[in-house]
Amino acid sequence: MSHHLLKGKRGIIFGALNNLSIAWKVAEKAVEESANITLTNTPVAVRMGDVSQLGEQLNCEVIPADATDLEDLEMVFAKSMEILGGPIDFVLHSIGMSPNVRKKRPYDDLDYNLLNQTLDISAVSFHKMIQTAKKMDAISEGGSIIALSYVAAQRTLFGYNDMADAKAMLESIARSFGYIYGREKNVRINTISQSPTMTTAGSGIKGFDGLMDFSNRMAPLGNATADECADYCIVMFSDLTKKVTMQNLFHDGGFSSMGMSLRAMDQYNKSFDQYRDEQGKIVYG
Amino acid sequence: MSHHLLKGKRGIIFGALNNLSIAWKVAEKAVEESANITLTNTPVAVRMGDVSQLGEQLNCEVIPADATDLEDLEMVFAKSMEILGGPIDFVLHSIGMSPNVRKKRPYDDLDYNLLNQTLDISAVSFHKMIQTAKKMDAISEGGSIIALSYVAAQRTLFGYNDMADAKAMLESIARSFGYIYGREKNVRINTISQSPTMTTAGSGIKGFDGLMDFSNRMAPLGNATADECADYCIVMFSDLTKKVTMQNLFHDGGFSSMGMSLRAMDQYNKSFDQYRDEQGKIVYG
Amino acid sequence: MSHHLLKGKRGIIFGALNNLSIAWKVAEKAVEESANITLTNTPVAVRMGDVSQLGEQLNCEVIPADATDLEDLEMVFAKSMEILGGPIDFVLHSIGMSPNVRKKRPYDDLDYNLLNQTLDISAVSFHKMIQTAKKMDAISEGGSIIALSYVAAQRTLFGYNDMADAKAMLESIARSFGYIYGREKNVRINTISQSPTMTTAGSGIKGFDGLMDFSNRMAPLGNATADECADYCIVMFSDLTKKVTMQNLFHDGGFSSMGMSLRAMDQYNKSFDQYRDEQGKIVYG
Amino acid sequence: MSHHLLKGKRGIIFGALNNLSIAWKVAEKAVEESANITLTNTPVAVRMGDVSQLGEQLNCEVIPADATDLEDLEMVFAKSMEILGGPIDFVLHSIGMSPNVRKKRPYDDLDYNLLNQTLDISAVSFHKMIQTAKKMDAISEGGSIIALSYVAAQRTLFGYNDMADAKAMLESIARSFGYIYGREKNVRINTISQSPTMTTAGSGIKGFDGLMDFSNRMAPLGNATADECADYCIVMFSDLTKKVTMQNLFHDGGFSSMGMSLRAMDQYNKSFDQYRDEQGKIVYG
Repeated sequence: MSHHLLKGKRGIIFGALNNLSIAWKVAEKAVEESANITLTNTPVAVRMGDVSQLGEQLNCEVIPADATDLEDLEMVFAKSMEILGGPIDFVLHSIGMSPNVRKKRPYDDLDYNLLNQTLDISAVSFHKMIQTAKKMDAISEGGSIIALSYVAAQRTLFGYNDMADAKAMLESIARSFGYIYGREKNVRINTISQSPTMTTAGSGIKGFDGLMDFSNRMAPLGNATADECADYCIVMFSDLTKKVTMQNLFHDGGFSSMGMSLRAMDQYNKSFDQYRDEQGKIVYG
Repeated sequence: MSHHLLKGKRGIIFGALNNLSIAWKVAEKAVEESANITLTNTPVAVRMGDVSQLGEQLNCEVIPADATDLEDLEMVFAKSMEILGGPIDFVLHSIGMSPNVRKKRPYDDLDYNLLNQTLDISAVSFHKMIQTAKKMDAISEGGSIIALSYVAAQRTLFGYNDMADAKAMLESIARSFGYIYGREKNVRINTISQSPTMTTAGSGIKGFDGLMDFSNRMAPLGNATADECADYCIVMFSDLTKKVTMQNLFHDGGFSSMGMSLRAMDQYNKSFDQYRDEQGKIVYG
Repeated sequence: MSHHLLKGKRGIIFGALNNLSIAWKVAEKAVEESANITLTNTPVAVRMGDVSQLGEQLNCEVIPADATDLEDLEMVFAKSMEILGGPIDFVLHSIGMSPNVRKKRPYDDLDYNLLNQTLDISAVSFHKMIQTAKKMDAISEGGSIIALSYVAAQRTLFGYNDMADAKAMLESIARSFGYIYGREKNVRINTISQSPTMTTAGSGIKGFDGLMDFSNRMAPLGNATADECADYCIVMFSDLTKKVTMQNLFHDGGFSSMGMSLRAMDQYNKSFDQYRDEQGKIVYG
Repeated sequence: MSHHLLKGKRGIIFGALNNLSIAWKVAEKAVEESANITLTNTPVAVRMGDVSQLGEQLNCEVIPADATDLEDLEMVFAKSMEILGGPIDFVLHSIGMSPNVRKKRPYDDLDYNLLNQTLDISAVSFHKMIQTAKKMDAISEGGSIIALSYVAAQRTLFGYNDMADAKAMLESIARSFGYIYGREKNVRINTISQSPTMTTAGSGIKGFDGLMDFSNRMAPLGNATADECADYCIVMFSDLTKKVTMQNLFHDGGFSSMGMSLRAMDQYNKSFDQYRDEQGKIVYG
């Protein structure tokens, strides 16, 4: 059911790849909520993924562009304003990738050229996108910009590697630019720190399976799905959250505020079953 | 314009006093968004304030009750379920008062009986409300509970006194109970940390005038109003935020993420105008 | 080996019970570092515990006193100043107890009289201690006050119950009073958030065994011991940390900054061993 | 007076320029506390600054090296181990510089090549330093690594520009690498978030004068000096803090935990003196 929360609003969704993508769900919900949008992803992703199909489904244009390239970004904003008929009200940045992770370089053996790429793709692209938009005055007064983040920005998770540092930087950019774009045009900028999600990107991370289970048992409401994340993005794009800015908003079923849940501990304790004595105490060594 | 975000939902609003109250605005918006609600405040507040008038305006029942009294709380939930025809979907806790502040007892000369009252009214009442509701199974599966907080829970502001400690405890209760009520009934519990607001309560705080100005100049979007806070409460009550729980959500125009803004610094620097030399450097002492 | 870090300093240690107590270790190290101290605990604890023996061992006076009683607190500071020959340079607050936990009242069935006791013993006592000392001008210029806390103040751990809310309030009191006592006498007030520790108090908490193991595997340096905590207290009492105030300092081997470690995840995954298929994927249900 | 806290320890200090530098003070105190150290800075800084003089004063070697260059870093660790006669026990990273700030590029008109330099110098260099050391097994079991940070990593301060994002990344690196180096060699890695300090670097920042004053009036203990910061570094290098890791430690007189102090507010309010009516209320517009 639509609430028409984004009626009359124009948006750009960066990063939809296939129907597992959070950006895909956000695009669907934004249209459902009466927004007009454009979609963009890298030329490769557009060729390999299903985003063109999504464009057809939603009857909206797909603009191939590299979010680390300033000219491409300019083109995305110019075309989107032309297609949608005016300045942009909301933008989703759902972009992140670590070539170090892909090439299985552990965190204590990083390739620094690859680290630069991780940062450029996953964090600096957010700055480039906003700087480009601001120079073009492409965002409406009171507009809303969101990037997707992860709790690894605050707490270390094995295997998340240099993406943790990129996410920390991403969240900092939201604050730094949120201040400037806020005072000048009342544009708010936030990050949503989402549960681990079984997207194509997520499933590439080492030990993701077990982590999803642990996270799900820790969070009292369980992991948040891509669909639910899309709902949250919609409200953050809407006029009902006009004074929320420079925040990192956890959308994770409560995981971020948990130290240990009974469910996760129960599961954890099962691992010791064969190492317990008659009184149920763990027998070490 | 209504989005019918709370269509079919039943709610209870604690703490509306007059049309400056955040709770008052939340009540108005909740009804506008198609919810059915009851209002409650202390018998004294009901007599002295304008809440009865609000009840008439919104065509909803006002239930006088003391939120620190378990029997009263039971009565509020029982009556509300009876009046509204079923379990409660959302609750607002907008209650806080420090007798130490009222009696001008500074933080290093607290009366401990009064501190107990501060805690009981401003923090423990939140626990009592939730515990009572849970025992009565009065909150629907997936319901949403919100309490209003303030950044003093994280950072000290002169004159806020023992209310800071009460707010810290309030936010902890949201986490502690959010875990339990979440895992058992998917009920989410959050606090919204609102800008200083010129309510009847707010205006009682020492130096509130200057603080409002400073806060307004620090926050890139300026202070959030009571109206805007009500909008945020609505989205947190709606089904679009079902996986947000155990969080303290800053609704403050960005204040909480600011260290120093140019506007506030400019104003601050004016205070030195008469103490500057020809080069514009501050001449101390 | 002593560094004489507390040479010429006078201190009061609240809360030593037996040689498992953190306060016990702090007392030993403080004396080793050339401080002169007094010890205090409740009359019952003094009778039941081994603190008198510690007093003999360290050749320092034990003052039975109830830390929730203002007159007793006054007496502790008066006597300590008399015995030690001047104002106090450092104070350790290592006091906490939840009658709700003891009586096995779960968090959603709290007895509110017992909650008041939890708060009074575990949090308000800290305020009372500082307020009393300040009124008597019993703390030296530049003195240092520490209370022991736990990560439950930030993140919910099942079974920690109302102690979580008490610790949140305790940490808030450190900030609120740290501001006032800092600006007036340069007294710094901090909390140290310590790893779960196998003290008499700790061992009373439900499922403490498994939690210690999990915490130990999560923290890259493992759980911090009582001895190591005492070392940290010493440096926080010393003149080398004179500008650290209003902070909550995690002393936990890194636990607080971890989302998931490989060691903990490996252990966790063992729990699924019998539920895995040939490919090693978890078979649910 | 020395406490011989670093007796028998070998250290490397990155970033001493002149006697205003925090690194300079750390070097002096480390030697005073019986450590053997080497100093390093860029070849340009060694030529232009007074670090050679410091080397003579402390009777320790100065190694010119570029901390963004892997070979130079390798050379620094190799030479230091050779000179000092064994693996390194502690390292200070006091390095940061933004070419965007220098070239007066505002945050919404960054040059991205310069941003890369900011990140490389101010954050990635920390990773490079640790990765290089770890590959060479150059840090002793239980060693301690510290980088200096600033509250801009958490809260936006106008004019701090892309250094805020670099500091956020720096603190993330401390966590990410703290996990790995901790579990493998018990090496702890922390950042110290220091008050604004009138170093050569600090004084380059726009409006630094007023900011120092504001910060000083906000913090109950006033701004922390370079000397005091050096003391804090010493205790973090010592064996008394062996279980503190992956933390960002505020050393700022309490600033980070303040929302508003009476002193700062009083000063702020003076700016309105000419805009007040007879009742003392601010007359806007």
